[in-house]
Amino acid sequence: MQVIVLGSGAAYPSVHRGASAYVVRGPDALCWLFDCGEGTQTQLQRCGLAPGRIKKVFISHLHGDHVFGLPGLLCTRSMQNPSVEPTDSQIDKHPLFMEIFGPRGLRRLLRTVLELSRTQLSFGFVVHELEPQVQQYTEAAWPEWQPPEEAQGLQHPQERPGRQVLPEADGSYILVSGGSLEVRAVSLRHRAPSFGFVLAEEERPGRLNSQRLQDLGVPAGPLYGQIKAGQSITLPNGQLLEPSEVLGPPIPGCKLCIFGDCIGPLDSAAAHLCQDADLLVHEATLEDGLEAKARANGHSTPRGAATFAAECHARRLLLTHFSQRYKPLEAGQDGARKVRAYETALRSTVLRR
Amino acid sequence: MQVIVLGSGAAYPSVHRGASAYVVRGPDALCWLFDCGEGTQTQLQRCGLAPGRIKKVFISHLHGDHVFGLPGLLCTRSMQNPSVEPTDSQIDKHPLFMEIFGPRGLRRLLRTVLELSRTQLSFGFVVHELEPQVQQYTEAAWPEWQPPEEAQGLQHPQERPGRQVLPEADGSYILVSGGSLEVRAVSLRHRAPSFGFVLAEEERPGRLNSQRLQDLGVPAGPLYGQIKAGQSITLPNGQLLEPSEVLGPPIPGCKLCIFGDCIGPLDSAAAHLCQDADLLVHEATLEDGLEAKARANGHSTPRGAATFAAECHARRLLLTHFSQRYKPLEAGQDGARKVRAYETALRSTVLRR
Ligand SMILES: [Zn+2]
Ligand SMILES: [Zn+2]
Ligand SMILES: [Zn+2]
Ligand SMILES: [Zn+2]
Repeated sequence: MQVIVLGSGAAYPSVHRGASAYVVRGPDALCWLFDCGEGTQTQLQRCGLAPGRIKKVFISHLHGDHVFGLPGLLCTRSMQNPSVEPTDSQIDKHPLFMEIFGPRGLRRLLRTVLELSRTQLSFGFVVHELEPQVQQYTEAAWPEWQPPEEAQGLQHPQERPGRQVLPEADGSYILVSGGSLEVRAVSLRHRAPSFGFVLAEEERPGRLNSQRLQDLGVPAGPLYGQIKAGQSITLPNGQLLEPSEVLGPPIPGCKLCIFGDCIGPLDSAAAHLCQDADLLVHEATLEDGLEAKARANGHSTPRGAATFAAECHARRLLLTHFSQRYKPLEAGQDGARKVRAYETALRSTVLRR
Repeated sequence: MQVIVLGSGAAYPSVHRGASAYVVRGPDALCWLFDCGEGTQTQLQRCGLAPGRIKKVFISHLHGDHVFGLPGLLCTRSMQNPSVEPTDSQIDKHPLFMEIFGPRGLRRLLRTVLELSRTQLSFGFVVHELEPQVQQYTEAAWPEWQPPEEAQGLQHPQERPGRQVLPEADGSYILVSGGSLEVRAVSLRHRAPSFGFVLAEEERPGRLNSQRLQDLGVPAGPLYGQIKAGQSITLPNGQLLEPSEVLGPPIPGCKLCIFGDCIGPLDSAAAHLCQDADLLVHEATLEDGLEAKARANGHSTPRGAATFAAECHARRLLLTHFSQRYKPLEAGQDGARKVRAYETALRSTVLRR
């Protein structure tokens, strides 16, 4: 899997840092977007990534710097793929069909904006909403201004009905399952309901001990596949061979965690699910010296992010969502070259096991 | 008055051309925004213009490339001016109070997006909606999907009630009046209700014939001001002096017209109101050879724009809203240097009389 950082800036997009957006690419042309701040479609252009490649979008929370680029991205994705008939009743079977995941309210946001901008889409889409846990609302400012709960807006003609996803007993939300890559969400503590996404590749069967198989007289071929699939086979001498006798321990898949804005996780689900992550993408809006201010605004510092990364034994930590108060170093400044080199290296992080 | 083009691209923002947005600057720190496509706030940063300077916003129509940057601009304007108390009951008297004008639906769009993103603002705002004329809907695609007319959303805590602006007998909408700069809107023909804005400076009193005044024995000073204000004065010899005897013809103010997407005007109000404009900003989405395609999509070509400019005797025509199919010329290509020079000159057009 590969992570491309399209935006690592907090609060608003600047000339130096885009607003939050990350692309995850993987096998079989997998191309998913995580958060979509204003300007994300322009950042995609800079990377040479056509919006039509993105098949799923995950929105961590509804603050503008994480979602205001989504309506425009949908419009552009539609204009660049005008061949699909927007009234096709099989639109959800089309390869350009798009699944969008995000907190309650995202569906109404998209419906209202698309309706008022009179935006027809050349592809179908569905919005699956995560129902926040009650405690995710408690720190939300502004309790005196609550929107009507039931308001949902008018279903868009190219929209298909989505799910309301509730947390499992362990506190995690199952978003994508049944394939080789599972996606769950965990609840975070922020000023508004915010989520972290955990992508876990299925573990792969261990390595075959081919020397041993040769000694036992098993010819390379279909039998190897059966063993890898966990089936026992009968040896030429009539004996039964259990896969465990010739298979190494299963190889764990990559685990990638992309967190939305937060002071930290809401409950133990996050640390449990992120255990041994290959990469944790975590915000660090302000420097350690401004921790009190960061917490007051529902944000983290590098130390806070690192503490959580250590707790779940993450192999790598990618800090992001930096306050726009931190300007890029001038070319002449001490350390600027080093920082630039790190940034270039980080822009695209490839995960391999 | 000065016009700054922040974006001249159609449909979506690209790396080369921002989505539609223009800043008009004038005397007394006047700084108004016309249209606000996605990425406008980043373009403002590039020009060194803080969002707090913008006191009025005019949205031509609700297509995404003209309005999707507005919610983010409001958020950033708020974060950069956190001193104002958002619950201040006098918020509409504060110098940061913002007036927003646009077609029916804009108020609900802002309410819904600000509500769902839980955006408190540090300044007050008001949305004045232009009620489109019935004929502006007839060419709108998609009649089978009509939103409920009455839906307005929840009034935002920092919002003040706005006006519903109806057209006058001549078909024009009065948006700003009573000061030295009047703003009216005219109806255009597009796929969605779209408007053009006409800014007309008040005419100024003519030049004083100071030689004549000297001959008549009028000393320079407060009496000059009285004459300029149109008052007659008594000469030292007891005679009455009418202003017309010593004042040249009134000097007409600048007239600036900024049109939203259109095939052309809906009615005669536009040509009448734009007569003798100093500058007409008009879209030219596609080249003349693609006129049929342009019309089918509710757009114009350079020839169409020039025809209207000639009809109203506009002194200058600024073409804009170019399809993103037109890429910038490579540095080596024929004419590229010339085009670049024109573009630089056009980026900021200053109007003087
Ligand atoms: Zn954020
Ligand atoms: Zn946030
Ligand atoms: Zn447009
Ligand atoms: Zn338009």
